[in-house]
Amino acid sequence: MKIGFIGTGVMGAAMARNLMRAGHTLAVYNRTKSKALPLVEEGAELCETVAACAAGRDMVITIVGMPADVEQVYFAPDGILENADRGTLLVDMTTTEPSLSVRIHAAAVSRGLRAIDAPVSGGDVGAREGTLSIMAGGDEEDFEAAQPVLACMGSLVVYEGPAGSGQHTKMANQIAIAGAVAGVGEALSYARRMGLDLERTIQTLSAGAARSFQLESNGAKMVSGDMAPGFFIKHFVKDMGIAEREASDAGLSLEVLAQVLEMYRSLEARGLGELGTQAICKYYE
Amino acid sequence: MKIGFIGTGVMGAAMARNLMRAGHTLAVYNRTKSKALPLVEEGAELCETVAACAAGRDMVITIVGMPADVEQVYFAPDGILENADRGTLLVDMTTTEPSLSVRIHAAAVSRGLRAIDAPVSGGDVGAREGTLSIMAGGDEEDFEAAQPVLACMGSLVVYEGPAGSGQHTKMANQIAIAGAVAGVGEALSYARRMGLDLERTIQTLSAGAARSFQLESNGAKMVSGDMAPGFFIKHFVKDMGIAEREASDAGLSLEVLAQVLEMYRSLEARGLGELGTQAICKYYE
Repeated sequence: MKIGFIGTGVMGAAMARNLMRAGHTLAVYNRTKSKALPLVEEGAELCETVAACAAGRDMVITIVGMPADVEQVYFAPDGILENADRGTLLVDMTTTEPSLSVRIHAAAVSRGLRAIDAPVSGGDVGAREGTLSIMAGGDEEDFEAAQPVLACMGSLVVYEGPAGSGQHTKMANQIAIAGAVAGVGEALSYARRMGLDLERTIQTLSAGAARSFQLESNGAKMVSGDMAPGFFIKHFVKDMGIAEREASDAGLSLEVLAQVLEMYRSLEARGLGELGTQAICKYYE
Repeated sequence: MKIGFIGTGVMGAAMARNLMRAGHTLAVYNRTKSKALPLVEEGAELCETVAACAAGRDMVITIVGMPADVEQVYFAPDGILENADRGTLLVDMTTTEPSLSVRIHAAAVSRGLRAIDAPVSGGDVGAREGTLSIMAGGDEEDFEAAQPVLACMGSLVVYEGPAGSGQHTKMANQIAIAGAVAGVGEALSYARRMGLDLERTIQTLSAGAARSFQLESNGAKMVSGDMAPGFFIKHFVKDMGIAEREASDAGLSLEVLAQVLEMYRSLEARGLGELGTQAICKYYE
């Protein structure tokens, strides 16, 4: 399949590479061109503009930074919607506002294009190994058309419902993580203050109702003091901010999410946004 | 071994039964005598007072309701400390204040007795099946003496450190659960509001970094509307209240715990204390 791929950061480059390995023909665009060059050496076509990357493709995949970047690459005059060929399937894999995904879908349909939202979880390791979880929203037949391509990048590819449902599922994922990682941070801060053996504490807690991925993965990092990012605080703050606004727009007040977001924002304000989410333990020091 | 067992509620009765099955000789006491009678039919000696249950035993096990009940059965004139034989090993399995466990330990030692704190997790199912997690604090040689008896009731029996460390570990456990279950409650309330398929949401989230026991167990109950208590809200409120006071006494402010405790207290105030902890989803309705 001829695929235009826009956004070749850490995640995007690894995902694009898996598509090329599976035999797809890639054209790539990145705002900072240097980050796209390794893929060009591996056989991708380099595009100088979004428009060039969008035109003449069967599918256009985007994974860029913030909702404003998504807005720009889709809706600008030289963007995807104005330049993709009729019938092209647009796949936004950025974690972004569900309402933006709905707007992209509507704009695509009105132009004879097709669009799904398909944010991912699983981090850079999942992107490299092709084991991402991919949460997709849109028209079901468009999902089915995209599914074989998505399966090159993820080991779990789920159709969640109409446009925006992939984003909403990703938001639910981040909301659950917010509570879990904060609970682990507080539990281990308490255990440290009370003089417990922290490795033993994790071992004991992992055997019962407190068991979680966050305890096993981020908890162990809190204990060893490894603050390297598996998932950046700055990205988590972005995601939680979107989730809080969406919930609030729907009349839903999520108080634990709001509390955890405030804690991470204060860490970001202390200059710790480039650390991993396990650095929530620093909030209690 | 001759064991006095004080507190034969749902948890205690099941634990006492496992001790009898393992060949131990039990004397039992319960404030509401009728709850002890089934065990008497199975061969336990019935005691009319705490003093009678404490005297003439190798070990005295307690699992009663609130810290005030623990205080009473240990420190009253007709309580355990005044009536147990010299050398008796006292094992409090109630979830209670770590500082109370430290006081019991000191009082026991000053009277030629021995004491460990050994709260459990795993609920009524774990108690029945002998698969509890048991978190023990005290002198290590006393723990080792108690270990074969504890192993009749639990599948994971861990020495956590000096007196109070079992309770502190249990508190860390409840703190981690507080964040996790609230995160699941908020994630699924969000998903419901946004019209997602909730079973699919749980399935997707369970594949990644949001995976947790709370998501799999309590999340599924939230979706099906099953509010029957695996763990009572009223007991969780008691435990979180202890954890918050202990943390606060140590100069540690656990903001997510405080938020979750406030939410559960408001559910209790609405008369929902007899429901299971999954009923946190009702907070958002």
